[in-house]
Amino acid sequence: MNASPRQTGAEWLLRSAAASGIEVCFANPGTTELPFVGAMDAVPQVRPVLCAFEGVCSGAADGYYRMRGTPAMTLTHLGPGFANAIANLHNARRAGSSVYNVIGEHMSWHVEADPPLASDIESLARPVSAGVYRADSPASLVMSARQSLANAMAPKGGIHTLILPMDLQATTMDEPVFAARVADAPAVLEAGLVEQVAAHVAAGRKTLLLLGGDALHEPALMEALRFRDLANVEVVGETFPARSEHGGGLPAIRRFNPAAEQAHAYLLGFELVALVGARRPVAFFGVEGYPSYLGDPARMVELCQEGRGGAATLAELADVLKLARRGLEPVERVTDQDLGESLTPESAARVVAAWLPDQAIISAEGKTLAFPFNAIAARTSRHASIVLTGGAIGQGIPAAFGAAIAAPERKVVGLQSDGSALYTVQALWSMARENVDATILIASNRRYNILIDEMRRNGYELSSPPVRDLLQLSRPELDWLGMAAGFGVQAERATTVSELRRSFRRAMAERGPRLIEVMLP
Amino acid sequence: MNASPRQTGAEWLLRSAAASGIEVCFANPGTTELPFVGAMDAVPQVRPVLCAFEGVCSGAADGYYRMRGTPAMTLTHLGPGFANAIANLHNARRAGSSVYNVIGEHMSWHVEADPPLASDIESLARPVSAGVYRADSPASLVMSARQSLANAMAPKGGIHTLILPMDLQATTMDEPVFAARVADAPAVLEAGLVEQVAAHVAAGRKTLLLLGGDALHEPALMEALRFRDLANVEVVGETFPARSEHGGGLPAIRRFNPAAEQAHAYLLGFELVALVGARRPVAFFGVEGYPSYLGDPARMVELCQEGRGGAATLAELADVLKLARRGLEPVERVTDQDLGESLTPESAARVVAAWLPDQAIISAEGKTLAFPFNAIAARTSRHASIVLTGGAIGQGIPAAFGAAIAAPERKVVGLQSDGSALYTVQALWSMARENVDATILIASNRRYNILIDEMRRNGYELSSPPVRDLLQLSRPELDWLGMAAGFGVQAERATTVSELRRSFRRAMAERGPRLIEVMLP
Repeated sequence: MNASPRQTGAEWLLRSAAASGIEVCFANPGTTELPFVGAMDAVPQVRPVLCAFEGVCSGAADGYYRMRGTPAMTLTHLGPGFANAIANLHNARRAGSSVYNVIGEHMSWHVEADPPLASDIESLARPVSAGVYRADSPASLVMSARQSLANAMAPKGGIHTLILPMDLQATTMDEPVFAARVADAPAVLEAGLVEQVAAHVAAGRKTLLLLGGDALHEPALMEALRFRDLANVEVVGETFPARSEHGGGLPAIRRFNPAAEQAHAYLLGFELVALVGARRPVAFFGVEGYPSYLGDPARMVELCQEGRGGAATLAELADVLKLARRGLEPVERVTDQDLGESLTPESAARVVAAWLPDQAIISAEGKTLAFPFNAIAARTSRHASIVLTGGAIGQGIPAAFGAAIAAPERKVVGLQSDGSALYTVQALWSMARENVDATILIASNRRYNILIDEMRRNGYELSSPPVRDLLQLSRPELDWLGMAAGFGVQAERATTVSELRRSFRRAMAERGPRLIEVMLP
Repeated sequence: MNASPRQTGAEWLLRSAAASGIEVCFANPGTTELPFVGAMDAVPQVRPVLCAFEGVCSGAADGYYRMRGTPAMTLTHLGPGFANAIANLHNARRAGSSVYNVIGEHMSWHVEADPPLASDIESLARPVSAGVYRADSPASLVMSARQSLANAMAPKGGIHTLILPMDLQATTMDEPVFAARVADAPAVLEAGLVEQVAAHVAAGRKTLLLLGGDALHEPALMEALRFRDLANVEVVGETFPARSEHGGGLPAIRRFNPAAEQAHAYLLGFELVALVGARRPVAFFGVEGYPSYLGDPARMVELCQEGRGGAATLAELADVLKLARRGLEPVERVTDQDLGESLTPESAARVVAAWLPDQAIISAEGKTLAFPFNAIAARTSRHASIVLTGGAIGQGIPAAFGAAIAAPERKVVGLQSDGSALYTVQALWSMARENVDATILIASNRRYNILIDEMRRNGYELSSPPVRDLLQLSRPELDWLGMAAGFGVQAERATTVSELRRSFRRAMAERGPRLIEVMLP
C-alpha cells in the first residue's frame, strides 16, 4: 500500500483496487490498455488472467464472484471489446454479482475526433452497469476511481464500469493509494412482519416460502429444514439462483417453474407467498392470457429485508413458530448401478451424481444434463451449483473457469449443452492456460433442443426445411474432441455409460482441465 | 408480393424486406424469435443462414454488403444476443456498410416487468445504428418497418435496427406488403470546386489525392491512372477501405499510414489535400504532441461530394486538366520461384499472390499476412480486398463468409491472424454448413504481434512475466487443425513453402471451405 511518488495512474488504480480487496483481473487488453498492462508488472497483488475473448472475461468474473463473494476486475479494449463482454455481464447483473470493469479508452483529448475505434461506450455500458464512470483528468480519475471502487466493493454493490483513457493510465499520480471503505448496509426491519407471517402459518393458511439469494446457501437451508413437518407450508427455490447448495444431507428444494401457464395457477393456490431473498415472480417469457407478474400481489410479502440474510430471516420465523432445529440427515446416495449402457441425459446425470466428489462446484448451462441432474442433486455429495441467471447463453464454461480460479481447492464440473457452449468456447483455452481443476461435460445432441421444444409448444411445423434447419447444429456436426484439441484441453468422447463412467471417474481422480463429449441420441 | 390476408407480422415484414431487395438473413434466433423463424418457411425469398454466434451474423452481413452493395438482414435474440453482434456492427459502421437488424424482443406488454432476458436494447443498439426503431403495436410496426427499411435501403443508408416484440411477429396483419421506395440522393455540386483544385494542380502545387470509398473501385482507379505522370500529384488510398480493388493491371495505390508521428508531417508536405471519398485523416490512436486531426485543415478540400461517385469526380478533374485516358497495363506477376523453403509472412504472401485466381476476394485481418501481401497486391490477378475498418477484431472470417454468400462465383481467401481469428471462430461452422468457396489462411505465430510492437514502441519491458504473458497466445498453443475439425472444415497445416504451395494450389483448384494453418516462426 505504499504510494510510490512516481507511480502511473494505472499503477495507482491497481494498487488501490488491491488494497480494496480485488485479487484477480480477467483481461483482454488492446493497444489502448498498454499502460495498464505495463502496470500489472508493478502490482503483483492483482493476478492477471488472460482470456482470448471478452465474454470469457465477464463470464469468469461472474463465476468468480458467485463462489468467492468479492468482485474481480475485467480489462477490455474500448467500446467494441467491452461489447463482447455484455452478454455475460447481463447474466452477472441478473445474478446480483459484483464486477469491476475497467475499459481502456483513447487518449482523453483524442475521443472527439471520432477515430475508427471510438464509440459511445457509456451507452453500451449502462444497460449492464449499476454505475458508469469516466476519467478525463487526473482529478476525475481520483474521484471516479474512489466512487466506483467503493460502490463495487459494497455489499450487493453490483457491476461498476470505469472508462479509463490511455493518457490517464500513463499519467503520473501523486495521490496516495487508497482502500475503498465499505460500510455495512444497516438491516431494515419492519416491525412485526415476521410475526404476521408466523400468525398466518400458525393459523394453518397455505403458505409458500420462496427462497432466493443466500437463502439457498447452507445456513439458510438448515433453517428451512425446520419447516418440513408443517403440512401447510411449501418451500421452493427461485428458478435461476446465482448459487445454490445441494447434497450431503441438505434438504432437496424444488425450483420454481416460471412458465406462466403453470406458475400463475400454482401461486394462486397459496393464501400467502413469502419472498425470502427471491424477487417477485415474473414470467420468463410473456404468454398471452397470463399476467407478467405471476400470482396475486396482494398475497405476497417480502420477508427478507434489506441488509438481512436469508438464514436470519428463516431462523426468526421458525423461532416464533417454535419449530425444532434439525441436523443434516443421512441420504441414500444415487448410484450408477443397473443403468445399462445406453447414454441418455438421465443415465449421464446418474453417472455424474454417483461419482461427484465432495465440495464440487457444478456450472450448469442448458437443460439437457442440468434438468436430470437437478432431479437427483440432493442425493449426491455436497456441492454448490451456479446456473444461467439472465438467459444469455455462453455462460457455462466461462463461469466454470472463473469459479475454478475463485476456489482452486474445489473440483469444478460443467454440465454444458453443445449449442450454448459454442458462444464462448474460447474459455477452454483459458482453462488450459491456467491449468484449472475443471471438467466440462458437453451434452452433444447437435440441436437447439430448447427451441425445438418451444416451437412444438407453439404449434409450429418442424418438418419444413428452413425451420428445421435453423434449429439443428448438425450439418456439419460439431466435433468436441477437435475443438478441445484446438484450445489445448485434454478430451475424451463417451458413447456408452461405461465409457462415461471411466472418463468421469478418471477426471475426478486427477487434477486439471478436461472435456468429455457425451454423445446423446 | 401478394399480401395474404392472414399473414403474420413477421411474414409481412419478411415479404416487404424481400420486395425491397433483401435476399439473405444471417440469423441466430432464440425463443422470442420463433414466430419469425416460422415466417421464414412462408417467405422463401429471404434465405435464412444460421450462424452459431451473433458476431458471425453481423460480420457476415458486413462482408456481404461490401461485395454486393445491398444490405442483408440479421436476426438476433433480445439485448444480450444483439450485444454479441455489436463489435462487428462497429466495423460495418466504419465501413459505411448498410445492415438491416431485426432484434426479437419479449411480448410488448411483458417488457416492463423486467423478466430475466430484458435489457435496454435501444441503449445497446444506438452506438452502432444510424436509426433504432421499436414496434409496440401493429400500427407502429407498419410505421417503423416502412421507415427502417426505406432508410436501410437508401444509398449509404447505414445500419438500421428494428426491435420487434414476439407478439407483433405473430400478430395478424392486413396491411399490404410494400417495397421500400428509395430516392437517389441528388448530387450536391459546389460550383467551381473541381476547377479550383485543377488550377492548383496546373500551377504545379504539390497535391495529394486521398482516395476512399468507391474511389478505390476499378472505374475510379482507371481515372486515377490519368494523374500518373504529374510530378506534383500523389495518389494515396485511405488506410482501411471498405472494399478496394487490386491487381491485373490496376494501378498500385499506396495506403495512407495513420500513425500520427508519420502522417502529420506527411500531410503538411502538401500544399493541397483533396479528399476523394475519404474522410478527413484522423490519427488511429492519439499520440502526445500530435493533433487528432492530422495535417492542416486549411489545405484540405472535400472534392467528392454528396451523391457523386469517386470515378465521376476524378474524371471531371482529369478532364479539366486535359489528362489522357489510359488502359490497364500489363503487370509482371509475382511468382513464388526461388523462395526457398522457409515459411515467413513474406514467403507465404508470395505463394498466395502467385496462385491467386482471377476475381478472388481477399478478406484480411491482422497485419502478419496482410502487410506483405498488400505490398505485392498490384502484381497478382484482379481481386477485391475487404479489411478491418473499425479495429474491432474478429471480423475476418465472418466477413469472408458473408462475402462468399454475396458472390458465390468468386473464390474467397482469408488472410487471417491467429489472435483475432479466435474472437469469432464459430464462423468456420457456418462456412462448412453453407459449403462456401472460401479458404482461410491462419497466420499461426501464437502471439498478439500488434501489441508486442506497440509495447516496444512505447518503451515497455517485454521480459517481465506478467506483461509477456498477456501478449502470448502460447501456453497452450492453439491447434488450428483441431479447431477446424471441431467446426467441420477441412484443414491442412503448412510448415514449409512447398507445403503451403501444395495446399494453397489445391484449395484454389477445388471448391468448398478450407483452412490452412500457416506455421510461422
